[in-house]
Amino acid sequence: MITLTTDFGLRGPYVGEMKVAMLRLNPNAVIVDVTHSLTRHSVLEGSFVMEQVVKYSPEGAVHVGVIDPGVGTSRKAVIIEGNQWLVVPDNGLATLPLRHIRAKRAWTIDFERLGRFTGWRISSTFHGRDVFGPAGALLEAGIEPEQFAEEIPLDSLIRLDVEPRKAGDAWLLKVIYIDDFGNVILNLEDYGRPGDVELPDFGLRIPYRDTYGQVKPGELLALPGSHDYLEIAVNQGSAAERLGLKVEDEVRVRLV
Amino acid sequence: MITLTTDFGLRGPYVGEMKVAMLRLNPNAVIVDVTHSLTRHSVLEGSFVMEQVVKYSPEGAVHVGVIDPGVGTSRKAVIIEGNQWLVVPDNGLATLPLRHIRAKRAWTIDFERLGRFTGWRISSTFHGRDVFGPAGALLEAGIEPEQFAEEIPLDSLIRLDVEPRKAGDAWLLKVIYIDDFGNVILNLEDYGRPGDVELPDFGLRIPYRDTYGQVKPGELLALPGSHDYLEIAVNQGSAAERLGLKVEDEVRVRLV
Amino acid sequence: MITLTTDFGLRGPYVGEMKVAMLRLNPNAVIVDVTHSLTRHSVLEGSFVMEQVVKYSPEGAVHVGVIDPGVGTSRKAVIIEGNQWLVVPDNGLATLPLRHIRAKRAWTIDFERLGRFTGWRISSTFHGRDVFGPAGALLEAGIEPEQFAEEIPLDSLIRLDVEPRKAGDAWLLKVIYIDDFGNVILNLEDYGRPGDVELPDFGLRIPYRDTYGQVKPGELLALPGSHDYLEIAVNQGSAAERLGLKVEDEVRVRLV
Repeated sequence: MITLTTDFGLRGPYVGEMKVAMLRLNPNAVIVDVTHSLTRHSVLEGSFVMEQVVKYSPEGAVHVGVIDPGVGTSRKAVIIEGNQWLVVPDNGLATLPLRHIRAKRAWTIDFERLGRFTGWRISSTFHGRDVFGPAGALLEAGIEPEQFAEEIPLDSLIRLDVEPRKAGDAWLLKVIYIDDFGNVILNLEDYGRPGDVELPDFGLRIPYRDTYGQVKPGELLALPGSHDYLEIAVNQGSAAERLGLKVEDEVRVRLV
Repeated sequence: MITLTTDFGLRGPYVGEMKVAMLRLNPNAVIVDVTHSLTRHSVLEGSFVMEQVVKYSPEGAVHVGVIDPGVGTSRKAVIIEGNQWLVVPDNGLATLPLRHIRAKRAWTIDFERLGRFTGWRISSTFHGRDVFGPAGALLEAGIEPEQFAEEIPLDSLIRLDVEPRKAGDAWLLKVIYIDDFGNVILNLEDYGRPGDVELPDFGLRIPYRDTYGQVKPGELLALPGSHDYLEIAVNQGSAAERLGLKVEDEVRVRLV
Repeated sequence: MITLTTDFGLRGPYVGEMKVAMLRLNPNAVIVDVTHSLTRHSVLEGSFVMEQVVKYSPEGAVHVGVIDPGVGTSRKAVIIEGNQWLVVPDNGLATLPLRHIRAKRAWTIDFERLGRFTGWRISSTFHGRDVFGPAGALLEAGIEPEQFAEEIPLDSLIRLDVEPRKAGDAWLLKVIYIDDFGNVILNLEDYGRPGDVELPDFGLRIPYRDTYGQVKPGELLALPGSHDYLEIAVNQGSAAERLGLKVEDEVRVRLV
């Protein structure tokens, strides 16, 4: 099984080219489209989406992610092996999925040796079709990464700064995702079960509940959400709009 | 074969999580994305879309539909067995597909017993990934519904009111779907072949034809459409906009 | 492998109906969604997208394309056999993919004989589900086209005018595609490696480079792109907007 997570959009030939190129190299691959509609160049959003998919995927799954503002520069294209595989640009995209795959080894893809498997020229602008997709297809077919990549130290991989920080008796958290309904997801897991949540920068104290419907329509709440991260929401409304928050913003939060 | 019809949107991790969770339980499933872009919470629209797909699906197909405004409340999650299977929230979504699957039995899913198959916690907010998707995957793998569900009477299922009604010499019809081009689909099937169609509330009498191109651009017509329901259209235009109609609206229609 | 390229949109039942109908006829088909979001009725855009997918597809792949403003009229539904297959309306959609499949024979589909395989009525408005999808599914299953189609001369197929033209010392080129980022793709291949590119109608001379990042943000450049056609772009901006260009527009270009 190979999953695809990209910011290519659904209108053009890009997604199709990538998938047929993969099936040409590995006709038996089961390809799962996760999304191709990520906010363009948003590495953090892509990392969050890939993490959620990894958490529910079977052992051995290969996850190809292409949010790649650095295509055509010297950024590495990497493979990470654990109980699942990641095939991504080395720009931090692997940060959150890495928490769940028990990583053992990492490689950087050698374009020239990869080109011997694919048989086509690697473009400067479309590594989804020419590098990441083919590498994922070959790995899923059982080809060893040594065949087209050089091992690198696991701790050399670029990581995003997504650790929650303490600021006095509060947390200084980062917005790591905002979903289509405006629910705001913060980088705090395993925080127990607060009664209420204070947002001191907004002068707000909001209830912590299990589901949206446990407050009145239009009211703010905090909840565990379906992704194990602390989530701020408005029942039948948009918390992101109400609070003026966007991905990467920082928010002080006190659990009370 | 398992089809998926949801209102999750294509941008986030939701669709991907649901699909990988299903493949984890049933690696051989062929998953067909019908749409994930239904109008949020529009049960009638979802019911129409699922009906069309059921009509062209092979025997034994499993159809998972998640338009689920009641997630986290006490609404049931149900399985319906016929010559095809439906796995849906018990909120009326099954109404139109039920017309085509020769239903024999129904069950309500027991979350605790289902959880023994999946091995993960069932969230309060994402039953597509935690309940409906897994149930569909297990059924397609040949697991009997008795293993994780309790039988309920078929006639206990919640149904939408979608029967056409007579109002004097006219029909009182409901808009059950409006497509991207603004064609208006009404809940009337098997109505013979009228010469013209009158819309008394609009003071209009429009021709009944086979295809859009049989009237001039910009003109209204009625036609059989591709879905067996009476359809009102504007050649190269939007009938919904012209007449100010939306899903669930009622319209009086006289066939003449 | 069967690829699907359409302008049906992702919201309604259309894509789902087409795919389940195909799997009903050929349960083992691997169906690849290329895109269903083409600009409605844009045959040239569809032809470009199908060409790119053909270039990276394996031998024997079946490509179904439905951009079909003439549905319900007398336009033919055709099959083209080469080292890959095309199944499309005869409206020029095959023009660009035909450059890459070494076409040997062509057929026009006989609706009555096709209907014997499918077993359902062929509608006047939805040939994706009723004609093109089923024909592709049958071909991929190894059914010979003679079973449901009549051979026609290859040179009777309708072609778009997409040959670049000379105008003095310049090329008179056509915009064949504009991607989501506003990059403008012109119908010129195999043009060597210019130093600069002049656009005399705009009074512009812009550098020819390998990737977007080789000029400053906001600056125009020309580049080979990832599709082998001459591309005009703005680094981190939209060339289509800057120059006011849309698909089918003509542009004079001088390579210097």
